[in-house]
Amino acid sequence: MIETATSSLWEDLIHSQRWEELRARLTATHSSDIAEAMGQIHGKEQAVVFRLLSRDHAAQVFSYLPSDRQKELLRALSTDEVKSVLDGMPPDDRTRFFEELPATVTRQLLEVLSPEELKNARQLLGYPEHSVGRYMTPDYVAIRPEMTASQALEHIRKVGRGMETLNVIYILDENGKLLEDVRLGSLVLADPQTVVTAIADPPLVSLLATDDRERALELFEKYDRVALPVTDALGNMLGIVTADDMLDIAESEATEDIQKLGGSEALEAPYMQVGLWSMVRKRGGWLSALFLGEMLTATAMSFFEQEIARAVVLALFVPLIISSGGNSGSQAASLIIRALALRELKLRDWFRVFRRELISGLALGSFLGVIGFFRIVAWQHLHLTNYGQHYVLLGITVWASLIGVVMFGTLAGSMLPFVLRRFGFDPAASSAPFVATLVDVTGLCIYFMVALVILRGTLL
Amino acid sequence: MIETATSSLWEDLIHSQRWEELRARLTATHSSDIAEAMGQIHGKEQAVVFRLLSRDHAAQVFSYLPSDRQKELLRALSTDEVKSVLDGMPPDDRTRFFEELPATVTRQLLEVLSPEELKNARQLLGYPEHSVGRYMTPDYVAIRPEMTASQALEHIRKVGRGMETLNVIYILDENGKLLEDVRLGSLVLADPQTVVTAIADPPLVSLLATDDRERALELFEKYDRVALPVTDALGNMLGIVTADDMLDIAESEATEDIQKLGGSEALEAPYMQVGLWSMVRKRGGWLSALFLGEMLTATAMSFFEQEIARAVVLALFVPLIISSGGNSGSQAASLIIRALALRELKLRDWFRVFRRELISGLALGSFLGVIGFFRIVAWQHLHLTNYGQHYVLLGITVWASLIGVVMFGTLAGSMLPFVLRRFGFDPAASSAPFVATLVDVTGLCIYFMVALVILRGTLL
Repeated sequence: MIETATSSLWEDLIHSQRWEELRARLTATHSSDIAEAMGQIHGKEQAVVFRLLSRDHAAQVFSYLPSDRQKELLRALSTDEVKSVLDGMPPDDRTRFFEELPATVTRQLLEVLSPEELKNARQLLGYPEHSVGRYMTPDYVAIRPEMTASQALEHIRKVGRGMETLNVIYILDENGKLLEDVRLGSLVLADPQTVVTAIADPPLVSLLATDDRERALELFEKYDRVALPVTDALGNMLGIVTADDMLDIAESEATEDIQKLGGSEALEAPYMQVGLWSMVRKRGGWLSALFLGEMLTATAMSFFEQEIARAVVLALFVPLIISSGGNSGSQAASLIIRALALRELKLRDWFRVFRRELISGLALGSFLGVIGFFRIVAWQHLHLTNYGQHYVLLGITVWASLIGVVMFGTLAGSMLPFVLRRFGFDPAASSAPFVATLVDVTGLCIYFMVALVILRGTLL
Repeated sequence: MIETATSSLWEDLIHSQRWEELRARLTATHSSDIAEAMGQIHGKEQAVVFRLLSRDHAAQVFSYLPSDRQKELLRALSTDEVKSVLDGMPPDDRTRFFEELPATVTRQLLEVLSPEELKNARQLLGYPEHSVGRYMTPDYVAIRPEMTASQALEHIRKVGRGMETLNVIYILDENGKLLEDVRLGSLVLADPQTVVTAIADPPLVSLLATDDRERALELFEKYDRVALPVTDALGNMLGIVTADDMLDIAESEATEDIQKLGGSEALEAPYMQVGLWSMVRKRGGWLSALFLGEMLTATAMSFFEQEIARAVVLALFVPLIISSGGNSGSQAASLIIRALALRELKLRDWFRVFRRELISGLALGSFLGVIGFFRIVAWQHLHLTNYGQHYVLLGITVWASLIGVVMFGTLAGSMLPFVLRRFGFDPAASSAPFVATLVDVTGLCIYFMVALVILRGTLL
């Protein structure tokens, strides 16, 4: 009854959450012994033990299990209980322990489970969030390379019923390794006696289950396919991802970017389905961070309190000037963020963008500056406001400040996404409000410095 | 030689750009006479005359033309010369004169032309920009409803070579009207003797060529198809649109929204491919408009110039308060714009959103207000800044103003997209900078009004 002792020890370790120790013990135990001891445990404990095995170890243990125990294990792997145990692990343990499941297990898992069960199981396969592994389905037909077109069609007629999509058929070798794919249309058009490998149109384009979903999007766009095969690192076929999933992914990537750009965390669900308080928290976090940053404006303003007291007229243009910087910054940031997301721009393009934005900022700032100058002169002459005898100097101060602030805004807005990408963050986090806050503080300093230079001896 | 006289009159009218008169004359002429007179003119004039005919008239004239003249006309319709003549028409004439081409002509046009020629022709088919008609291709196989599965496969083998996609096959009646579609996979799986109409899986989902591309996106998402058929208003099959086009459309719709949200016109090309000056113009337009709006802040500030002179300390918090309103407005606007774009929210949901945002705004504003209050009290006690003896009242002013400003920002940001949609504009035009500008002006007024109430008799 060694197995009973072993298995009850495992159960103890699971209940006291001593993952490290459990994993060490499992590593030291032979696959066949593990398989035998697993006969004594059931349900979630069985699944947890299995999930802690290394990839190769798991493949061996699985092959030692009798087929009814295999099925039981596969079902156990997708239950809510197991999910909650594994979710309860510290995140770093999880990444350390969770290796990709062996292809044989993954494939069977995908086949055995209902679509609802699959939702849980995908998380448990060990593929990170937003990876291709989370989107794959097992609804494909595989054929062997030595088949002729007519044999392949015969095979499809036998096994294809109920498959979600038959548009592309996959050629696998005897070990389940993906060799080629071939479109059903090509099979139908081909001479019935042709061997299927001669019909396939290379190059084979495939994804790794660990690839990021953005990579999938990129390949779908480049190759205009309706489905792409997914393999593990060794080239074993696991499943397929289809074009309609890509549409959902493209939309949700854009949604995330738009929400971040607007200055909140991504909601990750439709607006009306997010709980009110959960939404307030997601927005409140960023809003408070921005507020704390924006407090620097009060500090900056207090440096110039004396100047404001001497020339109150200076304060009148503070909102106009800092918002112009913020607006030009949001413009630049949104253009660059989107271009980076669509891979129109790469990190190495930063200097070309810098040059472009420098010129744009200069042009835009000069234009706004001229409008601002004439606004002040015109209001004075039309007696709409009285800016005092030095209104021309005030106009020049506003003009020069706008050039500086808009240029700074444009450069900050365009370079920040690059900086974030460079350090591994999401460029979309350089939201319009974030850029605006940064530019507000700097804009104030630029404005008052310019004023000190131009108005010294007159207003100041 | 009546035809010669007629045709040279037409040419005169075209060269002097008297479209109205030409169209009137064409309307009064019998189809067979037009067809005969068209024998005398060639190239762009021929195409322009044809394009000015009403839809039914054009169908008749086309049927009177001998087949070599038909081909000549189809080619002429897609040349750059014709494009530039028609592009030169005043836009209102163009919309008035350009009816959808008859289905017979459209279908032949799509079939005869090379992909490059198609690019021009699509614009000339009379379908508005961003309509489904601009994306359809003729690469599909049509079968007749009385065929059996094996006859259909036989037919596909005959005509399908070189077709871009064979994944879905379309069942048309003898007049080219779309009846059903059937997946190639289903044809392969079916008993060879079954009639194709029994294999089709209803409901038939199809698009009108005049539908907006967003409608196509909606149907693709809802029905998970790899291709959808496109018909004219009478149900005649014109072409198909495929899932890979949808991916491009989804991305470019999101790009437009992101660029507008950032406060510039949509660039309509990758960032680096847009000319520097064209980009500066696109950004400068909005930036100037925002600048003009933001000028109102200077006006608003000048109303309170006396108060600022009396209590300069009030000016210190102006940027902090107005930017908090702007930030909460951008957040709300971006969430709502995206939810409207993804059809998660409809116009009629505005009141539910209003209620939700009212509560969110109150909660967020109160929270920021409390931070602001303690910032002032703390800085005073830590002797970082001296806000004077009434610093607690100042703190209360900032607290109350933040609640008002953030609530207003949240409501303005969330309601503006609905208002724009209601009046037929693009909700994304309520960009973050636009909302911020609106909220800046109002925020200033709220702040100084609150100050007048709370600080009367002390600072003011």
